Amino acid sequence: VSGDLDRRSFLKGTALAGLGAGLGLGAAPPGEAASVPREPVPTAYAAAGGFTAPALPQVRLGFVGVGLQGGGHVENFLKIDGVEIVALADIDAARAEEVASWVVAAGRKKPALYTRGEHDFLRLVERDDLDLVLTATPWEWHVPVCVAAMNAGKHAATEVPAAYTVDGCWELVETAERTLRHCVMLENCCYGRSEMMVLKMVRSGLLGELLHAEGAYIHDLRAIKLDTKNEGLWRWQHSLTRNGNLYPTHGLGPVAQCLDINRGDAFDYLVSMSSPVRGLGAWAREHLPDSDPRRRMDFVLGDMNSTLIKTQRGRTILVQHDTTTPRPYSRLNLVQGTRGTFSGYPDKIFVEGRTPTHAWESIESYRAEFDHPLWAANHAAAAGAGHGGMDFMEDFRLIAALRAGTPMDMDVYDAAAWSVICELSERSVAGRSQPQTVPDFTRGRWPLRTPLGIVS
Amino acid sequence: VSGDLDRRSFLKGTALAGLGAGLGLGAAPPGEAASVPREPVPTAYAAAGGFTAPALPQVRLGFVGVGLQGGGHVENFLKIDGVEIVALADIDAARAEEVASWVVAAGRKKPALYTRGEHDFLRLVERDDLDLVLTATPWEWHVPVCVAAMNAGKHAATEVPAAYTVDGCWELVETAERTLRHCVMLENCCYGRSEMMVLKMVRSGLLGELLHAEGAYIHDLRAIKLDTKNEGLWRWQHSLTRNGNLYPTHGLGPVAQCLDINRGDAFDYLVSMSSPVRGLGAWAREHLPDSDPRRRMDFVLGDMNSTLIKTQRGRTILVQHDTTTPRPYSRLNLVQGTRGTFSGYPDKIFVEGRTPTHAWESIESYRAEFDHPLWAANHAAAAGAGHGGMDFMEDFRLIAALRAGTPMDMDVYDAAAWSVICELSERSVAGRSQPQTVPDFTRGRWPLRTPLGIVS
Repeated sequence: VSGDLDRRSFLKGTALAGLGAGLGLGAAPPGEAASVPREPVPTAYAAAGGFTAPALPQVRLGFVGVGLQGGGHVENFLKIDGVEIVALADIDAARAEEVASWVVAAGRKKPALYTRGEHDFLRLVERDDLDLVLTATPWEWHVPVCVAAMNAGKHAATEVPAAYTVDGCWELVETAERTLRHCVMLENCCYGRSEMMVLKMVRSGLLGELLHAEGAYIHDLRAIKLDTKNEGLWRWQHSLTRNGNLYPTHGLGPVAQCLDINRGDAFDYLVSMSSPVRGLGAWAREHLPDSDPRRRMDFVLGDMNSTLIKTQRGRTILVQHDTTTPRPYSRLNLVQGTRGTFSGYPDKIFVEGRTPTHAWESIESYRAEFDHPLWAANHAAAAGAGHGGMDFMEDFRLIAALRAGTPMDMDVYDAAAWSVICELSERSVAGRSQPQTVPDFTRGRWPLRTPLGIVS
Repeated sequence: VSGDLDRRSFLKGTALAGLGAGLGLGAAPPGEAASVPREPVPTAYAAAGGFTAPALPQVRLGFVGVGLQGGGHVENFLKIDGVEIVALADIDAARAEEVASWVVAAGRKKPALYTRGEHDFLRLVERDDLDLVLTATPWEWHVPVCVAAMNAGKHAATEVPAAYTVDGCWELVETAERTLRHCVMLENCCYGRSEMMVLKMVRSGLLGELLHAEGAYIHDLRAIKLDTKNEGLWRWQHSLTRNGNLYPTHGLGPVAQCLDINRGDAFDYLVSMSSPVRGLGAWAREHLPDSDPRRRMDFVLGDMNSTLIKTQRGRTILVQHDTTTPRPYSRLNLVQGTRGTFSGYPDKIFVEGRTPTHAWESIESYRAEFDHPLWAANHAAAAGAGHGGMDFMEDFRLIAALRAGTPMDMDVYDAAAWSVICELSERSVAGRSQPQTVPDFTRGRWPLRTPLGIVS
């Protein structure tokens, strides 16, 4: 973790921060103060309903990173009205050409390509014909790309997590506020059909007053992390220096929306605990050729991380992370209220006074009533898109908000609050599970901000 | 919580401690030191295989508390060879007569009755024809009854939790060691057929090296807690002054056995967090008559408590407690290893290299191989007994060990370690989830003690 403090100082000074510092992995030492004096919030960002920017008739899009997930986004945007795909950046020139060919095949103009290495996105963001820059790069590039885009006057959208350090989260918030640009984290799971149904149930009062929620990212990624292509090129490196929840937002984002985090409630503090470290090293020794140096590396990421978050209004959230054991996939997706509980994997529900016996009930008899209108109206268009269609829904909503000049479903405060769990969980794990205060990125405005409604 | 320190001082001085102090509810203030200098461990209690007492040809039994659960135990013992039911104590004389009539109806001698009030068990334990005193009283009497029994030379068995304060746990351990008597907490869930199957799976190596486990007591007890009879006479009072996990052992005991707690591993520390307090008060206002003062009480027990425990070998355990929301019953019962995971409610399993697809599998094809021999041999005898037969199994094993002079499946160290989660969770909740060190009741002997095997 040496060099980390240098990186953190460097981040303060420049919008291109972090670019020269390599991965800059590793949490700050436990106990180090997480907050520094922040700039005042500009009026436009202080609106209770959320920040809005002028409506765009057409959204001119530049992509940074068009690998598997970035390419999926390009495919989605080719199906959404009012989008022009102007430019693509990727360190893999062949992949950039491949994705560009999809645009051409759709009868569009070939996008400009930026393939001169890791920093070539800096040329892309300076174009004067772009409204939005979307990044689907390795995690360590999310903040630098978003910050560069916003400083160049573009809205920014990023894959998850938006940042994995406290400073990175603040940098996104401060840059968005200063430049009056959107900075959206594309948390696709907030657009899952089950998750959106739960939100509608919550908004309708079906579950009563919410008390507790659970989310997770339990996904056996051993083969993907230790592949020699795609995410296997970089994702495993985070397991070498970081022990905590590396990927909290898939499980946390949807339940945070139900709990009105940043919009009536806020995270207060968390505690975190990790199990022993076994899965990745064992898999490497069993499956990788002797020539692969990862067979001999000492990983530090505990296989199962459990984090408990307390909110300002006293509610509790369990967030788990396990990407290195053979356990079946789950995001838990549990939302518990005074009148009922929804639980995922598989979806089931209990509602006092409605469920006939004191046992979980299938959600089939609830679907017609609580299917989210966004899904009811657009499921055909989403069919075949990534992750069961929810990736399409998030891209659809992003473009809809930009074209209408309305607030984002998930804004920069959400991106920061959901992502900051990364470093805070690492600090807690490193410090015998000591509680860590979660920064209030809204600086006191969370009680006044409007909850997310049932958008359509 | 005023008066608590007085009670705690009083506890130090007398074997009848606590009797005069009423409920003595409430955790110590956060941060108060939990440990005091302890007595040296006598040789008999230092044995790696566990403490043993001389074999008893016949177990002469006295009961303190023969309500619903105590009466159930009496019924079980009437079906177990080598047991004589000598005496019953209960503050409800009619109930004592009723339970005594079952003994007579079984062709046995009528037990002596002790029904002269709360303290009449003190006369019972002084009888010279008793080997074992079993208590199924309200929680605040478990320690006083067990301590009095052991000081009078009898073995002690208690319903759960054995104690709910740190001092109470130490008092059980120290009294057992000093008197060279057994002190067993009757954690019936350790004898559940699913739980015992999981233990056999773990011992066989099916799940690989264990990493993480989850247990819970999620049981909608609102109507039972606020009844005007049985547990409704007392159990709700704990919700008036205590906020934490009031009832950890049903979920924790079975997974602690899998993880070799006190027998190769040990609890190190915990953190705990509670949700808002809603369920009990709302239920009271909706269901109780206006004359019932509980309608107007301010309960403090958070509806959902989540506790994370770290072990000395780095494994993690999630323990949850929720008795006041309408959520369906669950003890979670999840045991996760490097090769597979078992999860309860409903039972399911995934074993790498054996489960055909990357999804949970029914346990049906595992039953024949992993059904615990105790169940395979005795399921017919257990049929119809309390809680699906597991109450019979625990009573059967208790008598078997006493008659053979072998170690207990669960000894006083297990009783203390599993029960101490009560007060430690309360301290953590009260202190912004600060970590609480779990006392090592074995005083350094946990690495040397023998894990629980597959008993039969």
